Amino acid sequence: MSSSPLFHRLLLTGAQGRLGGVLRPRLRDWATVLRVSDRVPLSPAVHEGEEDLPCDLADRAAVLALMEGVDAVVHMGGISREDRFDAILQSNIVGVFNLYEAARKHGVRRVVFASSNHVTGFYRQDETIRPDAARRPDGLYGVSKCFGEDLSRYYFDRFGIETVCLRIGASFPEVRDRRMLATYLSHDDLTQLVRCALTAPRVGHCVIYGVSGNKHVWWDNRQAAHLGFVAKDSSEPMRATLEANTPEPDPQDPAAIYQGGGFVVMGPFDD
Amino acid sequence: MSSSPLFHRLLLTGAQGRLGGVLRPRLRDWATVLRVSDRVPLSPAVHEGEEDLPCDLADRAAVLALMEGVDAVVHMGGISREDRFDAILQSNIVGVFNLYEAARKHGVRRVVFASSNHVTGFYRQDETIRPDAARRPDGLYGVSKCFGEDLSRYYFDRFGIETVCLRIGASFPEVRDRRMLATYLSHDDLTQLVRCALTAPRVGHCVIYGVSGNKHVWWDNRQAAHLGFVAKDSSEPMRATLEANTPEPDPQDPAAIYQGGGFVVMGPFDD
Amino acid sequence: MSSSPLFHRLLLTGAQGRLGGVLRPRLRDWATVLRVSDRVPLSPAVHEGEEDLPCDLADRAAVLALMEGVDAVVHMGGISREDRFDAILQSNIVGVFNLYEAARKHGVRRVVFASSNHVTGFYRQDETIRPDAARRPDGLYGVSKCFGEDLSRYYFDRFGIETVCLRIGASFPEVRDRRMLATYLSHDDLTQLVRCALTAPRVGHCVIYGVSGNKHVWWDNRQAAHLGFVAKDSSEPMRATLEANTPEPDPQDPAAIYQGGGFVVMGPFDD
Amino acid sequence: MSSSPLFHRLLLTGAQGRLGGVLRPRLRDWATVLRVSDRVPLSPAVHEGEEDLPCDLADRAAVLALMEGVDAVVHMGGISREDRFDAILQSNIVGVFNLYEAARKHGVRRVVFASSNHVTGFYRQDETIRPDAARRPDGLYGVSKCFGEDLSRYYFDRFGIETVCLRIGASFPEVRDRRMLATYLSHDDLTQLVRCALTAPRVGHCVIYGVSGNKHVWWDNRQAAHLGFVAKDSSEPMRATLEANTPEPDPQDPAAIYQGGGFVVMGPFDD
Amino acid sequence: MSSSPLFHRLLLTGAQGRLGGVLRPRLRDWATVLRVSDRVPLSPAVHEGEEDLPCDLADRAAVLALMEGVDAVVHMGGISREDRFDAILQSNIVGVFNLYEAARKHGVRRVVFASSNHVTGFYRQDETIRPDAARRPDGLYGVSKCFGEDLSRYYFDRFGIETVCLRIGASFPEVRDRRMLATYLSHDDLTQLVRCALTAPRVGHCVIYGVSGNKHVWWDNRQAAHLGFVAKDSSEPMRATLEANTPEPDPQDPAAIYQGGGFVVMGPFDD
Amino acid sequence: MSSSPLFHRLLLTGAQGRLGGVLRPRLRDWATVLRVSDRVPLSPAVHEGEEDLPCDLADRAAVLALMEGVDAVVHMGGISREDRFDAILQSNIVGVFNLYEAARKHGVRRVVFASSNHVTGFYRQDETIRPDAARRPDGLYGVSKCFGEDLSRYYFDRFGIETVCLRIGASFPEVRDRRMLATYLSHDDLTQLVRCALTAPRVGHCVIYGVSGNKHVWWDNRQAAHLGFVAKDSSEPMRATLEANTPEPDPQDPAAIYQGGGFVVMGPFDD
Repeated sequence: MSSSPLFHRLLLTGAQGRLGGVLRPRLRDWATVLRVSDRVPLSPAVHEGEEDLPCDLADRAAVLALMEGVDAVVHMGGISREDRFDAILQSNIVGVFNLYEAARKHGVRRVVFASSNHVTGFYRQDETIRPDAARRPDGLYGVSKCFGEDLSRYYFDRFGIETVCLRIGASFPEVRDRRMLATYLSHDDLTQLVRCALTAPRVGHCVIYGVSGNKHVWWDNRQAAHLGFVAKDSSEPMRATLEANTPEPDPQDPAAIYQGGGFVVMGPFDD
Repeated sequence: MSSSPLFHRLLLTGAQGRLGGVLRPRLRDWATVLRVSDRVPLSPAVHEGEEDLPCDLADRAAVLALMEGVDAVVHMGGISREDRFDAILQSNIVGVFNLYEAARKHGVRRVVFASSNHVTGFYRQDETIRPDAARRPDGLYGVSKCFGEDLSRYYFDRFGIETVCLRIGASFPEVRDRRMLATYLSHDDLTQLVRCALTAPRVGHCVIYGVSGNKHVWWDNRQAAHLGFVAKDSSEPMRATLEANTPEPDPQDPAAIYQGGGFVVMGPFDD
Repeated sequence: MSSSPLFHRLLLTGAQGRLGGVLRPRLRDWATVLRVSDRVPLSPAVHEGEEDLPCDLADRAAVLALMEGVDAVVHMGGISREDRFDAILQSNIVGVFNLYEAARKHGVRRVVFASSNHVTGFYRQDETIRPDAARRPDGLYGVSKCFGEDLSRYYFDRFGIETVCLRIGASFPEVRDRRMLATYLSHDDLTQLVRCALTAPRVGHCVIYGVSGNKHVWWDNRQAAHLGFVAKDSSEPMRATLEANTPEPDPQDPAAIYQGGGFVVMGPFDD
Repeated sequence: MSSSPLFHRLLLTGAQGRLGGVLRPRLRDWATVLRVSDRVPLSPAVHEGEEDLPCDLADRAAVLALMEGVDAVVHMGGISREDRFDAILQSNIVGVFNLYEAARKHGVRRVVFASSNHVTGFYRQDETIRPDAARRPDGLYGVSKCFGEDLSRYYFDRFGIETVCLRIGASFPEVRDRRMLATYLSHDDLTQLVRCALTAPRVGHCVIYGVSGNKHVWWDNRQAAHLGFVAKDSSEPMRATLEANTPEPDPQDPAAIYQGGGFVVMGPFDD
Repeated sequence: MSSSPLFHRLLLTGAQGRLGGVLRPRLRDWATVLRVSDRVPLSPAVHEGEEDLPCDLADRAAVLALMEGVDAVVHMGGISREDRFDAILQSNIVGVFNLYEAARKHGVRRVVFASSNHVTGFYRQDETIRPDAARRPDGLYGVSKCFGEDLSRYYFDRFGIETVCLRIGASFPEVRDRRMLATYLSHDDLTQLVRCALTAPRVGHCVIYGVSGNKHVWWDNRQAAHLGFVAKDSSEPMRATLEANTPEPDPQDPAAIYQGGGFVVMGPFDD
Repeated sequence: MSSSPLFHRLLLTGAQGRLGGVLRPRLRDWATVLRVSDRVPLSPAVHEGEEDLPCDLADRAAVLALMEGVDAVVHMGGISREDRFDAILQSNIVGVFNLYEAARKHGVRRVVFASSNHVTGFYRQDETIRPDAARRPDGLYGVSKCFGEDLSRYYFDRFGIETVCLRIGASFPEVRDRRMLATYLSHDDLTQLVRCALTAPRVGHCVIYGVSGNKHVWWDNRQAAHLGFVAKDSSEPMRATLEANTPEPDPQDPAAIYQGGGFVVMGPFDD
């Protein structure tokens, strides 16, 4: 017996990106039409039930068109690493503004916003913090994600547009370095978290860390229960191999001291 | 007996603006050279002890030149009201980034950053909040000030540049409406607060509301004591006249419900 | 091998009520004598090991007699829905006072008091609260349960009578509406919670939400661990059917905005 | 030059009581008509600008008539000491319900509710508490004041009726015992606090301790600043005489241990 | 396939003590060399992979020698019960100072310090506390453990030596009394906790309660997740037998009121 | 008219020390007999109303004799600077234990204990902390004062002996360095604080920073109001001269970064 999908039209931005590519096939069953978008036409090309609308997020008119007829958005678009300010500015600041303006004009009611753990990357790895801890971004990328969290708060208080800000950890097929033992978010857990964020009955505006059930954690993430998320995976089974194959970190290395890891010494790039 | 000024060269941006114009003559004695700057050459023209460097904050190279040789900055520049996004973007986002990049390159150690109470304008007037309450900006202007607070936190954590973020209330010669009975900051108190922020021995990165000793307050501002600020003025003596000359607010009016007053229904302006 | 029951004489009030009827057979093994009571003689009639003492809670002398010889009380009696003030006054205010006075006079040491989530029903569904959050009752019924919590606190501070206030969610055989996906408390979990509250070694005066391990929760209920409670059931398996058979809630409907659901617009009834 | 009074018709209940009698002449100038009320016709009889409406608070119809045409209420009525439950029930529970129902029916927008420090009387004298500390009433009187605070919260959340709950300390012409050195509220400070509570622009529902600027305090009362209250008096000048004329308290005496003083061992009275 | 051990040389103090004896064989595989130490030569004598260095902790020079060449320390040494002050002074105050001085001189980077739940034993059993609650030691033994926690904090802030303070509950093969139903820490869970404390990537200075997953708990121990600890055992299966074989506690007995149990009335011993 | 003194016999330890010498003449009027004590006989010799009992705090029997017949103690004795561990051990650990044991044996009910701001000296100068912040001592001296605070807490919980722990700032006739602008406690304010601590009706066990009303403060000291303390002096009038005569601190100097100033790099002294 088949049930009807959760949404009529669901928009996935950044669909050609690394995590967008992970989510794309997994979101397909959740909507009658999955609108996928990135700067360029997608490859592989659209499947049945998909429609592809290439779009530059910095182009206000294009974003307005992109959002027409959409029930909800999973916003993975934009830059997801430290970069030159001007690039971040266009993608993550202008782009996010364009998205929310379009949501307002078209009456879109919910956004899942890919924020980042780098909004708090300057906390130490020996601290456990909650999502409402004062922000300590570790670079311009992190600052741009702060902007998205604040802007979406405004659109909720002013217009009632609900947003779940997911401060995504490190979401890869496998654990790649020691820091990821704490920050790992499996692709399945990411998918489940996005689903919770889209379907929880009433989310208002909230901020949640996206992280699997790792043995060592830096984030007190109890609010995730409000969304109904329960992690299924963990970095732990990958620990032994990882530790055998990577050198001991230098305890004086800022990348080993702060939660942001290598990001804390990366920026700012000179334009 | 004369003492030497506090700084060799102090920079005041936005010197032609409303509050910049208030501060300009009051800062003159604090430095051997007061560098004043706005988009256009200042009028009245420079006095002895001043130097005028007109500068568009969105022009990275110009801001770099502006900051050369400066000991500390009082950053009043940028837009200080709700406006179109593109204007705010250039002045308050690009401009602030340019300022901190220039501070980093020239080794400037302290900035007094004019933030705004509009970063928390969507709290209700019957709530008392602290500076570390989660932000609830009431417009794009407020969101841009959030950006400045986060960016300056990054430059402190990464490079040790100290910033005092002053969430300035309503600083006018007199109380102009009922909301200002709570948010009033006299020009003398503003001056004193800027002086404390410039001279307190160690400020790290901190956030303080700028408000006089008004009878009704919305902000628990005890951290101001860390800077040594003690308000001297109050809105109270102006209450009777103000209330006699202004109508009762409509209790259903959002401008009377939220701390941001009229700002909460102002934006966003269509570009 | 059989062990002796937990209590000699255990009193269950409201035994003819909906939840009282659920608990009655489940409590039978915990005491040598289960005293059951409601306004009217119980039907089905008493089993072996039970004794039936009908009693109007508003009748002080009757309640005093009811409590004689009792080791502990599970107080499910009184009104458990919004109602006219005068009815609530007699059952939930006068009645609870009578109960604690009788406990004091007879030296009863512990009460499990059926409070209600409606003492905090005016929080929003997108907020997660703890049991010590300021109360926000959603009706006269909720206010009466606040009274019971405060009165029992007094009897603990003054006379050492221990009380566990259980803010019971929605305890039905199955989930009946969308709100219950968050507030559902299975009959088995209710039973287990009552047992924990009766037998935990030292409870003082405490307040706990009574809720199963539902996927979406509104209440941070960690203190329940102090009592040793671990939920076994969840509303989640009933979600799909429920959502298929009920319309989408109107997001502007107060019953969909506040935790109290329909209660928030129900009262006060005109007497 | 004369200004118009603050209210057209202001109601003072309990006007014949101890504190009602203190407030009566002081409130007279704040309204065109001061409606005064107690169980019996007032003596001294009404002055110009007063109207006397005797009323039993437990009489719903009488209270409804009492509240007609009223702009705001200072509710000093009811019992203000430990008493038999049935008396407290009628005055402080039924009576307060009647008051708020009448406020709702007549559209009265603000109430100043005389709560009491006895809602937290079971805290120790060596603790400093805030108004949002969990309640620990020290008697049935205190429990009844909890009821009034919760009920008024409901009428605010449901109908927007604003209430300032004043947890009045010990308001007498002079300090009468050692406990009052901490709890003293001068008649002038009481008057000023009532005025603040009536006139602060937006109070929502809030709870404030009513206490002068005594040297030793038990209550962290910063929220009073939101109302604009600044104490003018203090118990300190009366200390020497008081201490010379009263014996050292027995440190084992509960009245010397708990904030509620003698109240903590007073009740409950047997009916 | 065998992996290399976690440490080259790991030191276990108090190896002849009750818990030291439990840990000794379990730590053997974690290091190439397990240095074991107590006041007297160990029996049973050393195994392969062990070296035995008897040492009086109060002997500074001996402790200095003991710590040479050590990578990490599990400090179970000292007195672990209430005792005369002079004995505690030498073992738990002078001894701990000697240990940290030696760690500093030899560059040892991490210590697992056996603190005790008795640093907070004067909280009541009906309270749930977090590790950062103000200390309330229940005897001189508890005070000496406070000293160790503070001293190790200093050595972290000053010299970067990391310490995990484990406030160990009651770690025995089986539950021996009713208090242990709450405080029980199985030997396996103790072992696992020590392993987490030794190997978690970055612990800074932290304080964790050591307790199994018991049904009734007094300690909110979420920070343990930062170390990656998950309890595997529980006191619950031993409850029935225990309760059948021990009398009901007297509710007026301080040992039944306070978390410290019998310790709260034990000291101070007269010297 | 003369009133009787506050105490019959008041003990001042450390009476020959720097602050003991300040307090000695000021305490004389508060007691019929002021017992003064230090390691050596005092000079100047005793005045009328004084009695001199030289005593080594590490000598248990001598301390027991010292405390006989005493109503209250101002414990200024012991070492008040960083020192070798063995010296601190005898004076500040053994000595304090001896003092409390003697208090217990003789029924002394209140102690004013000279603790120190160095129990939290490893917080940064740009942080504002409360007395209940986790301790971060800046040396062995600070650790020893932590010990005194914990030990006195135990004697309160166990035996009801009240203690006010005064974390004294820098109490000198004048401000001597830039750090003292924040930590200055005038001799008059010290005196007043000691008086409050001795005479406040019920202090339980509490911790207060001892600091004048300086313009820049690091400590949120509101609990001092519970004792009735109001600072009369401030470091501010001495600022200009001080700043003119001392060099700018090096911002990288730990003494300028941490609240403990030079203490943070002083210890531990090699024995």
